[in-house]
Order: sequence, then structure tokens, then C-alpha cells
Amino acid sequence: MTHEFFKIISRVEFEALLNSFAAVETETVSISDAFGLVLGEEIISPEDLPPANRSCMDGYAVNARDAFGATEGNPAYLECSATLRVDDNPGFELQPGECAGIATGGTLPDGADGVVMVEHTHDLGSGTIEIRKSAAPGENIMLKGEDVAKDAPVFQAGHKVRFQDVGLLAALGIKEVSIHRKPRVGIISTGDELVEIDAPQKVGTIRDVNSHTLRCLVNEAGAEAVNYGIVRDELDKLESTLEKAIAENDMVLLSGGSSVGMRDLTVQAIESMQDSEILAHGVAISPGKPTILGRAGKKPVLGLPGQVTSVQVVMLALVVPFIRQIMGQKDAFSGSDRFLVQAELDRNTVSKPGREDYVRMQLSHRKGMLPLAKPVYGKSGLLKTMIQADGLMIIPADTEGFYAGNTVSIWKI
Amino acid sequence: MTHEFFKIISRVEFEALLNSFAAVETETVSISDAFGLVLGEEIISPEDLPPANRSCMDGYAVNARDAFGATEGNPAYLECSATLRVDDNPGFELQPGECAGIATGGTLPDGADGVVMVEHTHDLGSGTIEIRKSAAPGENIMLKGEDVAKDAPVFQAGHKVRFQDVGLLAALGIKEVSIHRKPRVGIISTGDELVEIDAPQKVGTIRDVNSHTLRCLVNEAGAEAVNYGIVRDELDKLESTLEKAIAENDMVLLSGGSSVGMRDLTVQAIESMQDSEILAHGVAISPGKPTILGRAGKKPVLGLPGQVTSVQVVMLALVVPFIRQIMGQKDAFSGSDRFLVQAELDRNTVSKPGREDYVRMQLSHRKGMLPLAKPVYGKSGLLKTMIQADGLMIIPADTEGFYAGNTVSIWKI
Repeated sequence: MTHEFFKIISRVEFEALLNSFAAVETETVSISDAFGLVLGEEIISPEDLPPANRSCMDGYAVNARDAFGATEGNPAYLECSATLRVDDNPGFELQPGECAGIATGGTLPDGADGVVMVEHTHDLGSGTIEIRKSAAPGENIMLKGEDVAKDAPVFQAGHKVRFQDVGLLAALGIKEVSIHRKPRVGIISTGDELVEIDAPQKVGTIRDVNSHTLRCLVNEAGAEAVNYGIVRDELDKLESTLEKAIAENDMVLLSGGSSVGMRDLTVQAIESMQDSEILAHGVAISPGKPTILGRAGKKPVLGLPGQVTSVQVVMLALVVPFIRQIMGQKDAFSGSDRFLVQAELDRNTVSKPGREDYVRMQLSHRKGMLPLAKPVYGKSGLLKTMIQADGLMIIPADTEGFYAGNTVSIWKI
Repeated sequence: MTHEFFKIISRVEFEALLNSFAAVETETVSISDAFGLVLGEEIISPEDLPPANRSCMDGYAVNARDAFGATEGNPAYLECSATLRVDDNPGFELQPGECAGIATGGTLPDGADGVVMVEHTHDLGSGTIEIRKSAAPGENIMLKGEDVAKDAPVFQAGHKVRFQDVGLLAALGIKEVSIHRKPRVGIISTGDELVEIDAPQKVGTIRDVNSHTLRCLVNEAGAEAVNYGIVRDELDKLESTLEKAIAENDMVLLSGGSSVGMRDLTVQAIESMQDSEILAHGVAISPGKPTILGRAGKKPVLGLPGQVTSVQVVMLALVVPFIRQIMGQKDAFSGSDRFLVQAELDRNTVSKPGREDYVRMQLSHRKGMLPLAKPVYGKSGLLKTMIQADGLMIIPADTEGFYAGNTVSIWKI
């Protein structure tokens, strides 16, 4: 068949199309299993944290007035009314002139509003404690509700759960949360030249690299990769595999189709699915222009370049954030998950206006200066260019490039 | 019992002690399973990649001399001797005046040394192709061995396997590699005040936060976390749990023991193990000073602060890189795994000389300028300070702090 000229859309337009797909449904899991996944509900604090005033230090709980002005040379003397264990509920009120021994994490008795560290005290025996340093009200104390107040919002729906978040949920006694489940992502490699990686080297065959790199990146994004192997360039074979992959997954990635014939085949296969539509025939990024977006029912199907390095860049730039969006993450495309380092560009680097360039870069660290960034040498199709790259420099579509000496942001990969 | 004054060592000395522990043994796994783990062997390329000269484009393979000087206005005319499929092994030599149709990834026939993209050609029919652009020798071709030459070193032992590395291994037909297996890390929480996270809120109890955050960070480092629950402050109970954890794991983390009594108990428990030794009683970092390092046989045992935020910082600063070292990663302590962003400090920030400070920082992004970094407000023991932090600013031990306006490196967490 002949193929039509297709309209390339901008990265921003492409992302808007990706944004039209809904997140997968939610389920309830333990907070440990929620780590790295995305909350499907807002978390409201069920209680005050801490539930009572607690000491941050080993020492003596005092009423600040009683230790006012105490110094090494002019100590105060207080009667020790109790020695509290860390797990005691004091149940008494400190009287003027009294103090109480307290451990880190221990609950303060009523009437105490500060803690003097044990290093600044001396036990004189027979219940008298010499206080050698004053304590301001609130000093060395964590006040009731100071960390989180009851009914305060803690995390929004759409928030990705980090290790410290799991800690806070544990502290609040929240054992389970609602998260978006891990999406399943089907991966199909297409191409007559492709063979499994354990096939012997032979002229005319190319080992299927993309199944492996795609699987890593899908897993790293937090989803589950399901491989459907290699499909030759035959429409009926591609259709039946795609149909199965769509039925069994939340999203399907086809890699292959750098050549014009394969592109057509991918488009045809997607179009042959029930209730299907091609949403984009290409995106103005380099590498990655021949990226196809379609849908089958409500499920996205992406036709990715077959070229082994292009597909890696497209995965990083578009597909990994898209997977995070399908996982429910808010602002998945904002770039806030990217680790950007500032560097000094070592040479003029030009780009065709109208497309967004992702240039592979190496960073050399220099003491007391910004690292030096230089583009990786070598043809863009060589795998070694991605091996040698420390990161990607994004040249926006409305920019013709950057000058040597410019401070640029390098996205570490 | 009374406790001795202990010697605090520097972070550099502490790391040297950690470096004395050996990596876990290696095993052979599929390259997909090797993702994120550390190579236990050097990888040497078994073959040339690509195995023959390949086209990077759809077009015509030519001998560059035959298309020399060809332009739109002054095209060259070549006879098309064959149309090669991507998976063909040509098996013929291109003669002067001939060209051959070729697809992206296809193998070049002998005698061809360049490819003219199909866009710059026109098929005149009856086997004649109009060539409208010259091709330099090597143009649009990936040469035999250009990506990786046979017998070239590809990765060193101690290299962490990234997604692009899995791709290169696949391309080389390497199906399995030797990696250091996932270490098992035992986690014990200690403290009379601790209760499980589903215990109802009660004055005098604190929910066990650390088991949960430690588990997340251990898993994220690539190891397997094994929880041993909460142990009360009783020496015999702690000893028996520690003994079991040492037997079943490659490393044990005890959290708790911020108070002097608990520190003593941790030290005693470690010392009671067979062939054991306390290697360090503290490290000059803040937070994290009361970190204990011991060994039982050849296995490391770390006594971590019980304080919920201190232990998070110690995990990031010391324990996560240590786990990576035990996983075989070279230079695990070099900080090269850290994502550092340059930022402008918003206020003078002082530090006690002689200790390395890890200051929780928030970053505000500003268009066209470095982000602004400001320390997180609030008592250091509050969990919310880690929730609000975007990263940590390290103030080295030999520095008294930084000034407002200084450009500082923020380690994103």
C-alpha cells in the first residue's frame, strides 16, 4: 500500500493526548506495599502526632519558670518527684519546685513545659537535682500534634509514596492505603530481521534488544512488563498478537517500524482493533519522531521506533511519565521526577527549530566548578552512545541550540 | 551499669571500616534479572557488533564514487542490481554503476560503502534509480564492529547494570551474567515504648516507624529486607533475636538506642555474639552521631539511632551505600549515585566544625535562575521535616557553614 503524508504534532500536543487516558483502578494494600505507588485517596490524619507532649532528650522535665536563669555558676535546685520510663503514662502534675526524670520519647507530666538535658544536671542524691542550664518553654519537647494535627490533610490523592511517607503513615497508625494498582504493560517487538538474543550471530539478523530495555524501563516505572516476543512483518500475525496483548494489559507498546513499511503495518494493525483510532502519527522530538499513538477501546497502544537508541529516549521522554500517569501520579509530565544537574556546555550545539532535541551528554566533574557537559560522539544508532551518556540535554522546539559556555540542565539517566 | 565515654570517629573513618566488609557471593542470572544488580565479572564482547556493515536508513546502497557530486540539478543514474530485505544476507558484490535497495538495519553488499536516503532518490522504472544527493563513504552506515569490537571490554566487575546495559548485553547475545546476589538485611526495632503500627494510640507508646522506613530503603537499595519485629529493652531477648537475625542474613540493622541505656544494651548484645567486635561507637555526622558499627563473624551489625528522622538520614548517608557495597558495587561511597542539584542558598547556615551536617532543604524553582534552597523549619525529630524536604545539604566537617547567596549542592531525596 502507499502511505499518506502524516502530520507531526508537538511534544506538548502529544502529551495532551496521553493525558486523556484514565488511571487504572485503585486497590487497598499495606503501607509497605504502597511504597513507590500512587495514592488513590487523600490521607487525613486520624489523630494528633505525637498524642501528648514528649521529650526529645534524656533529662529532666521541668516547669521553665523553676529553672529560669539557671547556669553552671548559679544552678537551680529542684526536687525529683518521679523518674519516668519511656513508656510511662505519668498521670500526675508537676508541682512548683519539682522536676521529673525523663527519657527520650517519654511523655511529659502535666505542669512540665521544658526538658533540661541530663548533661546539664547533677543528681545530688536524696531526690535533689542540680539544674545548670535554663530551659525555655517548649525546649527539647515535641508538643502534642506538633508533627501532624488531627484532621489535617497529610497527602493528596495522586501523590507518589516515598520512604519517608511510609514512615509518617506508620506513625499515624495507618496500616493500609488505597493506591492505583500496578498497570500491566504488554511489549511486542516487530521485524523480520529480529531474532531471540540467544540466536547465534548471523548476517541479516538482529537480536531483539528492545524487549529487554523496554521491560527494564517499564518495571522501573513501577508497572508490570508482559512480553509477547517477536512478531514478523505479517499483518494477521501482528493483529492477533496485538489483540491478545490489549485484552491482557492496560497498555501495549509495539517496538519496530522504523522503516516506512513497518510503520504502515503498525498503523494498520492498530486500526484493525475493535473501537480503535490512531491519535498521532508522529511527534516532533528527536530521536523519536516516528512514534505512533493509538487507542483500542480505552487502552493506549504506542508504536515506538525500532531503532534501539531512539526507543530508549522515547521511553524516557514520553512513555515512563505516561506509565506514571496511568498509575495515577499527578503532574507525571511536569519533569519533577527528573534529576536535573546544572552544567557548562563545552561547545555550540545546534538543533533544528520546530522539534525538541534530546542530546546524549557526558559530564566531567570539576572541583569547585559546574561539571562540563559535552555531547556523546558517534552515530545516534550506536548502543554505546547510550552506555556512555550520563544524561540528556533537552533543546526546546523554539530554540536553535545553545552556545559553548552556556549553563545547561542535564537530565541524569 | 555505667557506660564509658566513647570515641566518635569521622565519616571518612567510618566508611573505611564499612569498606572492610566483603561483598556477597555471585550467582548467574538472566540479563533481565540482572537489572539494578552489580556485575561479578568483567564482560568482554564475544563478537563484533554489528556483525557486518548495516544501513541506518531506508534507501539505496551505493559505492560513494558512483554518486560523487550528485545533486538535485545534476543527479547520478545507477542500475538497481537487487532490492534487499532487512533480513537478507546479500552474498554478492556491487559492481561499478550499480546500487541496491536497502532497508533500515539491512546488511550492505560488498562493494557498497554508503547509503543514499530514499527521499533523495527517484525510481525511474526498468531498474534505473536517479540519485539526487551524494553519499560520503560511511554515510548512513553502521560499520562492522563500530558499536562494540570483538574482544573489547564492555563492563567491569562491580558495575551496576542499567537499562541501557541490559540492551547492549542483549545485542551481544549475552543471555546470562554473573551478579552479586541480593543481600538479605535483617531489621530489628528496639524500645520498651514501641508498639506495632495497628496498636491504638495511647500515651506512653510510640508506633514502630523505623521497621517500615528501613524496609523501604533496604528494598530500594536492591537488597531484601527481613523484619524481626519489636524487641523490648531486655538483654536476653535482644541477644536471641540478634543471634537469629545474624544467622539468617548478610547484615543486621538494629534501630533504637537513642537513649544512653539503649545504646549500652545494643553494644552489650553485639558483644555477646560469637566472634564479635565493636568497631565504632559513633560517627561525627549530624543527625546520626550515636551510630554503632560492630561485626559478628564476618557479618556487619549496625546500631542505628531510634529517632525516626535521624535514622532516615543515616540510612541515606551511610547504610544505603554500604548495602550497595555489599552488593559488589565499586565506589559505592563516592556519591556518584547521588543526584545533586545546584541551588542558591537563601540564608546563612552554620554548622559545628568537626562534624558533617546533613541539613534538610526545600527547593523553590525559579525560571532562568538556580533554584532557591532554604532549610526546612521545625524540630529535627519531627517526621514532617523529612516529608517537606526535597533534599539534603551536606556541610563538610571542615566547614563552618555556608553564606546566603552561596551556590550549594543539594542531594535530592
